[in-house]
Amino acid sequence: MVAVGGEVVPTDDVADGERLARVVLSRIVEPGDEGVGRWVRDYGAEVVARDLGRAGPAPPYARGRGVEGFRGRARGFEPERVLDGIAAGGGRFVCPGDREWPTQLDDLGDARPLGLWVRGRPDLRLWALRSVAVVGARACTEYGAHVAGTLAAGLARRGWIVASGAAYGVDSAAHRGALAAHGATLAVLACGVDRAYPPGNTELIGRIAEQGLLLAELAPGEHPTRSRFILRNRVIAALTRGTVVVEAALRSGSLSTARQARALGRITMGVPGPVTSGVSDGVHELLRDGAEVVTDAAQVAELVGRIGEELGPARRGPVTARDRLPPSTARVLEALPGRGSVDCAWVARVSGTERDEALGRLYELQALGFVERTGGTWRLAVCSSEHSKGW
Amino acid sequence: MVAVGGEVVPTDDVADGERLARVVLSRIVEPGDEGVGRWVRDYGAEVVARDLGRAGPAPPYARGRGVEGFRGRARGFEPERVLDGIAAGGGRFVCPGDREWPTQLDDLGDARPLGLWVRGRPDLRLWALRSVAVVGARACTEYGAHVAGTLAAGLARRGWIVASGAAYGVDSAAHRGALAAHGATLAVLACGVDRAYPPGNTELIGRIAEQGLLLAELAPGEHPTRSRFILRNRVIAALTRGTVVVEAALRSGSLSTARQARALGRITMGVPGPVTSGVSDGVHELLRDGAEVVTDAAQVAELVGRIGEELGPARRGPVTARDRLPPSTARVLEALPGRGSVDCAWVARVSGTERDEALGRLYELQALGFVERTGGTWRLAVCSSEHSKGW
Repeated sequence: MVAVGGEVVPTDDVADGERLARVVLSRIVEPGDEGVGRWVRDYGAEVVARDLGRAGPAPPYARGRGVEGFRGRARGFEPERVLDGIAAGGGRFVCPGDREWPTQLDDLGDARPLGLWVRGRPDLRLWALRSVAVVGARACTEYGAHVAGTLAAGLARRGWIVASGAAYGVDSAAHRGALAAHGATLAVLACGVDRAYPPGNTELIGRIAEQGLLLAELAPGEHPTRSRFILRNRVIAALTRGTVVVEAALRSGSLSTARQARALGRITMGVPGPVTSGVSDGVHELLRDGAEVVTDAAQVAELVGRIGEELGPARRGPVTARDRLPPSTARVLEALPGRGSVDCAWVARVSGTERDEALGRLYELQALGFVERTGGTWRLAVCSSEHSKGW
Repeated sequence: MVAVGGEVVPTDDVADGERLARVVLSRIVEPGDEGVGRWVRDYGAEVVARDLGRAGPAPPYARGRGVEGFRGRARGFEPERVLDGIAAGGGRFVCPGDREWPTQLDDLGDARPLGLWVRGRPDLRLWALRSVAVVGARACTEYGAHVAGTLAAGLARRGWIVASGAAYGVDSAAHRGALAAHGATLAVLACGVDRAYPPGNTELIGRIAEQGLLLAELAPGEHPTRSRFILRNRVIAALTRGTVVVEAALRSGSLSTARQARALGRITMGVPGPVTSGVSDGVHELLRDGAEVVTDAAQVAELVGRIGEELGPARRGPVTARDRLPPSTARVLEALPGRGSVDCAWVARVSGTERDEALGRLYELQALGFVERTGGTWRLAVCSSEHSKGW
């Protein structure tokens, strides 16, 4: 069972014991720890969480690696209480095996997150299927901020979910651009989803949690560190269909996101800038290294749309079956008329859903190819009715 | 026989009749006329020049194509007089088969120039072997002019000859950048080499003729036209090892140069700029089309240095045999001491050569890998002595 959009949906989700074990591990293990990932693969999360969380001799598989650190961090940690706390704020903890788990993260192998803390209404898996990362320099120029904002707005208008890291500079401009276009955006944090880092982005991060999705591997209460930022980047790289770097100095963190994206077979893109600008140097290096040159949202959408099963929802049809939709989403879909376009308020009224909730569902449905958005109105996608029969 | 650097050198050059025939053809045929190129290949320049230049029935091979246009243009044209006139100004007419002919132009097939009018002291073939085209928008931005100038200066300092079209904007900035670095530059005009087009570049074109090379397919006295500009671009593309586009709007002439360069197997490069700038749009399109991203002269030099027989003169040795050098060039080479560096004035004095002449020869020798330049001084290249024995 997992809370989706405020209601409990029967699914093939993981059992409570497994989830609690992973909550413990998300607290005591640093992100991307492949050693622990291997133990979890070999012995299961519950065994590993028990072995690392309580006193007693270290388990044989952990020999050669101190377990005191894990145990220190486990002390006083109450997974049920933390889970309840996050659920009270509308959040949840999504695990591998959950229906909402974005299975593309499995490409990270043993460095796959042990779980993801999530705040926000939309379904993580459905959003991630159609997400693009827009990342870049914190100390970006006006040019970089302008380009990131425009690009994100254009992607959002095309039904793409803009993913970034909520940092200052390019990240913020990307999130804001998507929000300004009434589009969808998700942020992957390097701290707990109950924290706002950087502090200057508190309001923005709050809006993302309200209107989009806020994700973190780290348990609530955790603070960011330099290595956590870098490890967070692999989640952005793996979660999305491609990564666009807008401005980045040589040796910048955004380049690491892009390089990891490429290593994972995702599309890697860069927006060129003046060769006289230090914060474009890293992007140009990336481009010389084989990343795709992109100059606008249409080009990004074309590249990321090319991969996977869809070229564009209207052309290839929905990416999931209608009868696999969560009830709240199916209700919004059913509210749409067979012909013509309606606005979100209309959909909310007919489906008996809150307006913001309805909007989130509509974006989900767009991501899945069931509906199309033109201007401020929504309609059934061209081929969604035929797919609704067979799928 | 051909005039090289003011002296007549015994060579395997074409006979006077052939040269005069090609002078006539350069006057009456538009550049790149593949039909006439084919006739010349099949029947020889002398037959075709005679057939197209004088009254009487059209030759059988020219049937289906009016010859009146050719004949109209031949009327009153005296090839010997024009040749003498250009020679009096230090110029010459270089033909396929001449020792100075840049044989890479043969890649143009039947569209190969019938000959090239040349002003300037350096040996065309030797310079072309180590030339890179830097082209771009006439209406460039300050950014484009800055980048073109810096790039050209950097290439010139590395011993590369900067080729361009003497137009306003990027072309001018490139020529000026090379000259400012006391480097070598050549311009291919879309009019006669006795004309200065555009008029505002009269002084610059004069400096290029003095210190570099001025080339044209068109006979002296000819004016540029729109189609001649485009046809001129194929000569720039074919003559050089690679083409760098600095700024270019969509559908700009510089893009045609770059695309022809690629079609000919030359390296095609583009300098990125802001995606918000219309004069970078064409460059970005080119980059998305597979051209190489370059941001400075070192990157260009690395790319063009990679192709052909040399990676850098010092590493692979001279590209031609010492005993095939023209006497004036050989004299300058012999003036260089076995060890240590000397300046140009020293070389001029010891070799009994004018200073400017000596400098031109030194650049030639650098292009061929015989000498190296550090700062303002010159010395024998590391391996030139050993090559001078065997080659």
